[in-house]
This record gives sequence, structure tokens and C-alpha cells, in this order.
Amino acid sequence: MSRIITIGREFGSGGREIGKRLSDELGIAYYDNEIISQIADRTKLAEGYVQHVMENGPSTLYPITIGRSFYMGVDPIMEQNNAIYREQSRLIQEFAEKSDCVIVGRSADYILREKHPFRLFVYAEMEHKMERCKKRAPESEHFTDKELKRHILDVDKRRARYYQFFTGQTWGDRLNYDLCINTSNYDIKELVHAIAHLVEA
Amino acid sequence: MSRIITIGREFGSGGREIGKRLSDELGIAYYDNEIISQIADRTKLAEGYVQHVMENGPSTLYPITIGRSFYMGVDPIMEQNNAIYREQSRLIQEFAEKSDCVIVGRSADYILREKHPFRLFVYAEMEHKMERCKKRAPESEHFTDKELKRHILDVDKRRARYYQFFTGQTWGDRLNYDLCINTSNYDIKELVHAIAHLVEA
Repeated sequence: MSRIITIGREFGSGGREIGKRLSDELGIAYYDNEIISQIADRTKLAEGYVQHVMENGPSTLYPITIGRSFYMGVDPIMEQNNAIYREQSRLIQEFAEKSDCVIVGRSADYILREKHPFRLFVYAEMEHKMERCKKRAPESEHFTDKELKRHILDVDKRRARYYQFFTGQTWGDRLNYDLCINTSNYDIKELVHAIAHLVEA
Repeated sequence: MSRIITIGREFGSGGREIGKRLSDELGIAYYDNEIISQIADRTKLAEGYVQHVMENGPSTLYPITIGRSFYMGVDPIMEQNNAIYREQSRLIQEFAEKSDCVIVGRSADYILREKHPFRLFVYAEMEHKMERCKKRAPESEHFTDKELKRHILDVDKRRARYYQFFTGQTWGDRLNYDLCINTSNYDIKELVHAIAHLVEA
């Protein structure tokens, strides 16, 4: 199997931890948030803005007035957002050219499809995701259970929309992945050894 | 993880071979078609009939005339079919009580839910399933590609209907499984070692 590993994940399922630990176990590179800072660097856009566009997805691509105007020229906001997507795609290709690696999120499974990466999708039951989020929340964060559940669903809704827009595929649909793993009943450390075996199979 | 392992699988994906090899690797029992013969034995129904009901699912539960009659008493065909389902459930519970085991199909993941089995779902891309079916077909079988594809889709449609009727859950929905694995890019023998690691994780 390929040692270029892409990870799609439900929010709170432990996908990022799996990615980090897997890269350690296999001794290969790991990319996650550095993608945002590098895109900011290349596009000369603010890091916060890049992150906002990448997290909120394509709905922010269109200014509210677009339906009411007949302006058909180049829209500067749309252009800026397209530049972010182009740069992301280019960067991920460069990472995968450079060496074996783990890339979390960013539709990397689709961007790298010609390299046949090992495509992992990580998910869990809602109660486990909530528990995990609570354990990892900064002290300043005070969500009620209802708010937390809503937050988890919201993040995943944005991820699904982003993935759909960018790839034309359905986020989390098993056919887009080699392995889908439910972390609800697992200790993540133990799990990573087993996934490493699957990657090497 | 539990060493009671249930396997749901798309037709042609290699789920049965994985089940058999996994039971060998872990040194535990394996149940598949023997379930049908044992049910036939217990219900005193013909094995072919039991198999037909179990493969065609709940649509055969209702005789065609049911909508036109006002007969509300016990329907003998429905009763017979219910007996098959009851016996299947009882038998699978007995297997799981007796020892660690691998059970392929039969909604065993749901039937054994209180024992928290390791729930595996095996799938593959259509072209791989077709290729696998062709390799394993008896010489007398002559499907065109179109017919074969239709056959694969038909079998899975029946499995999905059966599972839905029996469990109220969606067949193949990742949340009903601990692990969903796409066999398209794998050698099944290699894969089984890695799955065994996951079961033991």
C-alpha cells in the first residue's frame, strides 16, 4: 500500500491524533495546520483569512449581492478564494512529491488521487466525540452538551460542503476511502499500530 | 476488542474469504452456510426453502393475496418465515455463547449487539467485485458484464432490505460497524493479518 496517507475525519473522532501518531510510527512527514500558514505565505493573504475560507468552505465564495447584480467580470473575492484553493492543491502535490507523508483533511485524498494514496476516514459515535472534545477543550470553553453537539455537527457540515464543492464526491462515503474506522471502542495508541500494519499490507 | 467477529459484506468483495481466513488466523470458529442447514434442521423446513427466505428477505413474507383479503388470523407462510428468523437469532446467540467466532452475514452484528462484537463491513469498487466474481464463477456460468453487474447489485439490494427489515438500521452505514474496509487495492491474505491486529488492538 502507498505510504502517502490521507485522513478524512469527523470532528472529535481522533483523526488528527491518529495522523500524528501514524506519522511517528511510520517515520514519515505529517502535515496539518502548516498547510494554512504556507498558503498564507504564498498568497500574501492573512493566515486568519485563509483559515476562515478553508474552514467555512465555498459558501463564502459568493458575495451576497451576486444574485442581484449583472456584474459578470472577475470578482476579486472569488478570485482570492480560488487562489487559496489552487495554492492548497499545489502545496499538497508538492508535499507528496517530496516524501511519504500523512496529510489530514484538505480533500487531500482527491487532490492526490493519481498517486493512489492510502485513504483513511475516521469517525465515531456522537457521545464519544463529545467526550473527547470535553477532555481536550481549553478551560475557557464552556459549551453545554447541546451546544457542543451542535458545534460538532456544524463543523462536519462545513467539512462535507467543502469536500463536495472541491471534489464533487460525498464526504465520508465509504467508496472514497480504503479504510473507515470507528474509534468509539478503541484506545487510539493501540489502534495506530494496527493501522500501520494495514498501510504496510 | 471482542473476538466475536461479525462480517457484513458487499457481494463479490471478498468478505467471506476474509471471514474464513480470519477465523483460521485467530484460531476461532467460523459460521456461514452451516447456519442455513442448522435452521432447516431445527424448523423441519427444507434447506432450499430456508435459503430462499434468508436470501430474498422480507418481501417473500407476504403472500400476494394479502392486500385483497380480510383474513386477519395467523398466516401460515408468515409464521413459517418468522420461525426461520427466530431460529436464526437463537442459533447465532448460541454460537457466540459457545466460543469466540466469526459469523458472516445474517445481521449477526445486530443480533449480538449486547455482546459488543467486532463489527466488520467489507466492500469494494464495482470493477473489482466483477473481476472477483468472474474468477470464482463455475464454468457453467455465463453472465455478460452487464448481467453480472446487475446480479451483484441485486444481491446487495436484497441484503440491504433483509438487514433493514430485521434491524431497523441501514446496511453498510459506517456507524453500524467498527471497521469498513475496501478490498479493491488489497491482497486478501495480507489484509487478514492486519485485520487480526485490529481485532487484538
